[in-house]
Amino acid sequence: MARAVELAARGQGATSPNPVVGCVILDAGGRVVGEGFHAYAGGPHAEVVALRQAGERARGGTAYVTLEPCDHTGRTGPCSRALLAAGIARVVVAVPDPTPKAAGGTARLREHGVAVETGLLAEEAERVNAEWLTYARLGRPHVTWKFAATLDGRSAAADGTSQWITSPEARADVHRLRARADAIMAGIGTVLADDPRLTARPEPPRDSQPEPPRDSRPEPPHDSPEDSPGPPHDSPRPPHDSPQPPRGRPPLRVVVDSDGRTPPAARVLDGEAPTLLALAPDAPAPVPAGSRAADLVRVPRHPGGGLDLGLLLRELARREVVSVFLEGGPALAGSFLRQGLIDRVVAYLAPALLGSGAAALGDAGVTGIAGIHRLVLDDVTRVGPDLRLTARTGPGLPRKEQ
Amino acid sequence: MARAVELAARGQGATSPNPVVGCVILDAGGRVVGEGFHAYAGGPHAEVVALRQAGERARGGTAYVTLEPCDHTGRTGPCSRALLAAGIARVVVAVPDPTPKAAGGTARLREHGVAVETGLLAEEAERVNAEWLTYARLGRPHVTWKFAATLDGRSAAADGTSQWITSPEARADVHRLRARADAIMAGIGTVLADDPRLTARPEPPRDSQPEPPRDSRPEPPHDSPEDSPGPPHDSPRPPHDSPQPPRGRPPLRVVVDSDGRTPPAARVLDGEAPTLLALAPDAPAPVPAGSRAADLVRVPRHPGGGLDLGLLLRELARREVVSVFLEGGPALAGSFLRQGLIDRVVAYLAPALLGSGAAALGDAGVTGIAGIHRLVLDDVTRVGPDLRLTARTGPGLPRKEQ
Repeated sequence: MARAVELAARGQGATSPNPVVGCVILDAGGRVVGEGFHAYAGGPHAEVVALRQAGERARGGTAYVTLEPCDHTGRTGPCSRALLAAGIARVVVAVPDPTPKAAGGTARLREHGVAVETGLLAEEAERVNAEWLTYARLGRPHVTWKFAATLDGRSAAADGTSQWITSPEARADVHRLRARADAIMAGIGTVLADDPRLTARPEPPRDSQPEPPRDSRPEPPHDSPEDSPGPPHDSPRPPHDSPQPPRGRPPLRVVVDSDGRTPPAARVLDGEAPTLLALAPDAPAPVPAGSRAADLVRVPRHPGGGLDLGLLLRELARREVVSVFLEGGPALAGSFLRQGLIDRVVAYLAPALLGSGAAALGDAGVTGIAGIHRLVLDDVTRVGPDLRLTARTGPGLPRKEQ
Repeated sequence: MARAVELAARGQGATSPNPVVGCVILDAGGRVVGEGFHAYAGGPHAEVVALRQAGERARGGTAYVTLEPCDHTGRTGPCSRALLAAGIARVVVAVPDPTPKAAGGTARLREHGVAVETGLLAEEAERVNAEWLTYARLGRPHVTWKFAATLDGRSAAADGTSQWITSPEARADVHRLRARADAIMAGIGTVLADDPRLTARPEPPRDSQPEPPRDSRPEPPHDSPEDSPGPPHDSPRPPHDSPQPPRGRPPLRVVVDSDGRTPPAARVLDGEAPTLLALAPDAPAPVPAGSRAADLVRVPRHPGGGLDLGLLLRELARREVVSVFLEGGPALAGSFLRQGLIDRVVAYLAPALLGSGAAALGDAGVTGIAGIHRLVLDDVTRVGPDLRLTARTGPGLPRKEQ
């Protein structure tokens, strides 16, 4: 199963709005005869890839799958039936499928006499699928808040200058993470101050990549031939499946612009990627409805100030946005934190000190130390001279420590 | 030499006001026949320990020493002569001794026909001896600024509560570092706000340690018998030697109290450890002169506010304080940084967010991003759920990166 989780991870950032899934098939003698992962939305499911590789050797064997095999009929039938057809005798599942439409795979397998176990390495399998499980369970996208700051938590100097606190390596890493998200979000303050493009420009540039979907890793040889022809075993029904592989679909740019202040010349309106402006119901529209520069969505104001971010996220989920990469600024991040809507924090810390200037995080609703927002540190990685910390919080996913 | 640096590190925190030194002796055939390190001030020098272990096998051999062997005559004569007497043919030195009194060892060795090389692994040897080299070269103690904060750089919540942001493990680690310093320093703001004891209370408690000096690590068997009898090869002249081994000497508590506001009932005046109050010339004395509770020192005010910290450090160097562990608060740390007097930063970061409250660092004299204080990250270690970052800056020691 650990191998299956590893395989699942290869699909990260490319399967939206589908989950990432990994599958390992053992023959009746316990030898690995097939491996697969879901590489992109619209591509074959992990089980199908692994079963193809295994062929007849799957008969009487065991399948390890990170997510419960789907049981809904798409163009070529559900994975549960593919496993039955291949003669698999035992299926080990890490995490049950939380969506009513796709779930039921294990029940069907059991009905047909297949031994099914669930829960093996569930925590690891949940972790690798955090974005999609959050989306499937909570009906809103998974939110990663990224910030860059000095060791003393400053994101700009006293005079407002901030380019650059972190290194080119750290900034390249941000583009890599942006490219894995379905949406990149910023507040109007950031748009007015920095005029960011909010596009993902990873290296090597995605335009020059010949074939695979965005940010996909090199596929193992046995997957390639099966993947290329198209989605033979896929279902058209979201959220588990997507009708069209969103190959190269750039992340949606979302600006939280309560009062409609986005300037017409802002880079987020340059048409390089789709843009959504979230406005309060009473705000003026920065672009005319139907403009190619941006789509508009009206979101009620929140009693605590700004927009109701929970409703905005729900609207994004409706648009099949599974993951949001929130890039600031401090006020918007504070609002998200206050409303309990941040799932992951990625902090790029430069080994540097400022002592004054804008803080990385604005009011997060904490008055005393008892109200502190505790996170669990998942990863610490050096990126050039800087440090990248990844921590998680929020409901929907288990916490290892604490 | 890498082994000699490793040996030198064993003396860290216990040799003040002497340097840490490590020595490895090879016989004429290149086999290791002796190892030693300077374990505590007043104890035998590294070369002497290693030569004793090697005995006759040192004849015609090579000595690797992290610091130039001393050449000044103490009670039993300098290390340079000990190496000559043992018949060493070649000496490899990492770093020359910067003190006029102790230097000259390599010159004497060369005069007597010994082949001498210098500079091997100089950077590593400088790093392990950062405190003493800063003291010897700049005539002031090496200053480590420690702070504890959230990922967004807050050291307290908005209402001032701060206990505890970091974990018990992180706080225990702080006590370990405190115990290695000659002085623990805080500003009057911290004394008034938190009433800290500013003592080192490492686990296991130092009182229960039977024999070796503070925070010393277990000594290798060959060192033990020679170390116990006393300082046979030691010289009474500072800064390279100290007449009395300062065994168990608790770190000096230093309060920067420009205006003499330390309350008589403050814990720093409890007599548990020596205390020094640094006052402006015109400030009232919180305790009478000659009090057992604290010593007083008058330091001129700095034009930029507060005291002239460079002069305070010079006064501490006069008192054989080689290393200062600066614990805050934000204003004092900012003053030290502005005056270019911080050599190392140790940051304990809790995976938590506050969004408001006191910043870890106050005004550090930076207005624009060009003035940012850049550091070089030397170490990143997880301490319980928290993260400890160690970075260096300042003159006197080379930088690896940049």
